[in-house]
Amino acid sequence: MPRSQPLTRADFPYFWHISTRWADNDVYAHVNNAIHYQFFDTAVNGWLLEQKILDFGKTRTVFLVVETGCTYFAEIAFPDTIHAGIRVTRLGGSSVTYQVGLFRNDADTAAAQGHFVHVNVGRDNRAPVPISAATRARLATLQIAAS
Amino acid sequence: MPRSQPLTRADFPYFWHISTRWADNDVYAHVNNAIHYQFFDTAVNGWLLEQKILDFGKTRTVFLVVETGCTYFAEIAFPDTIHAGIRVTRLGGSSVTYQVGLFRNDADTAAAQGHFVHVNVGRDNRAPVPISAATRARLATLQIAAS
Amino acid sequence: MPRSQPLTRADFPYFWHISTRWADNDVYAHVNNAIHYQFFDTAVNGWLLEQKILDFGKTRTVFLVVETGCTYFAEIAFPDTIHAGIRVTRLGGSSVTYQVGLFRNDADTAAAQGHFVHVNVGRDNRAPVPISAATRARLATLQIAAS
Amino acid sequence: MPRSQPLTRADFPYFWHISTRWADNDVYAHVNNAIHYQFFDTAVNGWLLEQKILDFGKTRTVFLVVETGCTYFAEIAFPDTIHAGIRVTRLGGSSVTYQVGLFRNDADTAAAQGHFVHVNVGRDNRAPVPISAATRARLATLQIAAS
Repeated sequence: MPRSQPLTRADFPYFWHISTRWADNDVYAHVNNAIHYQFFDTAVNGWLLEQKILDFGKTRTVFLVVETGCTYFAEIAFPDTIHAGIRVTRLGGSSVTYQVGLFRNDADTAAAQGHFVHVNVGRDNRAPVPISAATRARLATLQIAAS
Repeated sequence: MPRSQPLTRADFPYFWHISTRWADNDVYAHVNNAIHYQFFDTAVNGWLLEQKILDFGKTRTVFLVVETGCTYFAEIAFPDTIHAGIRVTRLGGSSVTYQVGLFRNDADTAAAQGHFVHVNVGRDNRAPVPISAATRARLATLQIAAS
Repeated sequence: MPRSQPLTRADFPYFWHISTRWADNDVYAHVNNAIHYQFFDTAVNGWLLEQKILDFGKTRTVFLVVETGCTYFAEIAFPDTIHAGIRVTRLGGSSVTYQVGLFRNDADTAAAQGHFVHVNVGRDNRAPVPISAATRARLATLQIAAS
Repeated sequence: MPRSQPLTRADFPYFWHISTRWADNDVYAHVNNAIHYQFFDTAVNGWLLEQKILDFGKTRTVFLVVETGCTYFAEIAFPDTIHAGIRVTRLGGSSVTYQVGLFRNDADTAAAQGHFVHVNVGRDNRAPVPISAATRARLATLQIAAS
């Protein structure tokens, strides 16, 4: 099993800060593996909201998730604070791939990292729609070379 | 239905800060009612950990939840930050009742508030055990008069 | 602290069946107290969907939660199946109060029980709206005398 | 982006049945992408408990998650019932890779599918430990050829 190596904070141009919760911890007293995907989701959509690309229920297109994945390197646990770094690694016609790194408190190497693929679709028919030039320009600011 | 009135920040001696998550929002685009209890849980256990009263899996007694309740005054939604205030309103022999107020961003009146009752029990047999004098003294610091 | 006594299955006219999940269990290896409210929510909205009273995003009024509460009598844990009984204990002009009992596997007494208050509001302005006669008639079928 | 093709029920030797919950639905009125990983987790650990391979907190070794991934083909939504099929696609010395398919109600093709990698570690030191012969024999019963 070839495993990816943990990225560092320098690999990410943008961070969203997330507080862990008591109930994130499962019977093993660490954050359950599914919660990491809540962190991915929150960082990406948080950025989209901040950029005003996403506007709850008002835009004619929405980004839906078509693929995700995560590699876990180290345990995280309540009450850690998570710094979720995001960068864009592929910007297609109607889809965008984000890489997300989860950093625990002041650690410089990722406790977990993964990818998150969004496709832009019509709100009603859910058919793929090209990402607008304005949105592409904003997404391009998240493209940085990997270390 | 007599409803309690929203408390203000001045009613609480201690706050725990919680970031909302994308998936907290339900189909009504606001934080789902069950999530408020994650906030209660997180604030109380966060304080207990900070005070070193709670030490994951190592103490011989643990606090288990026997009763909770919440009144919802205003909607909260991702990406709001929640300031969860806690105070102790009843300190019994083996149980403690917390009141929790959830404040949205910089609002001074609670968006929701409720109570959270912990009983101190033996880790293994789950039978009630008197709260120690040291812990009582710490809990007493959270007792302030209601406005 | 006067505690309510556990109800039995005979106290409820309707049940919704819910499977527990691995991540419902917290560090104490039992279902976290906030999850019980997911069960309440699921049973009530499940019934409303089944009755076609609730129709995602298409009705002009929606039921929002204004108050909830739960008393916990016994622990539940993954992989238990929960039988969530519901009954209507108060049917007001624009609000309805449900009592919910959570029964573990084949147990006849509730492991937890609580209340759940819905208010009928306009989807857009969120102002209270009287519950329609048709919906009241359906809700009335959930009113049975407490044991 | 080469996407995997949806598997069918015939590809899986074992199924765990999961009820969806009201709060699983996010603002897009479908089950949020992170919830799919709760389903993966529940199916795998449900099987392990059923086989008595996993025994909460009592075994000296535990399986921790080191990698997960999911491809989403079709939306699922409350109140759907999910049939989570699992099979073992790789059985290493101290790790096991499961493939999981999520089937909605009576659909024969997967709405989503993914992989879930467990590594067997010492409960206390979290260092990898070879999977016992007895457990390997049980896991081998979940190995079937892909269609």
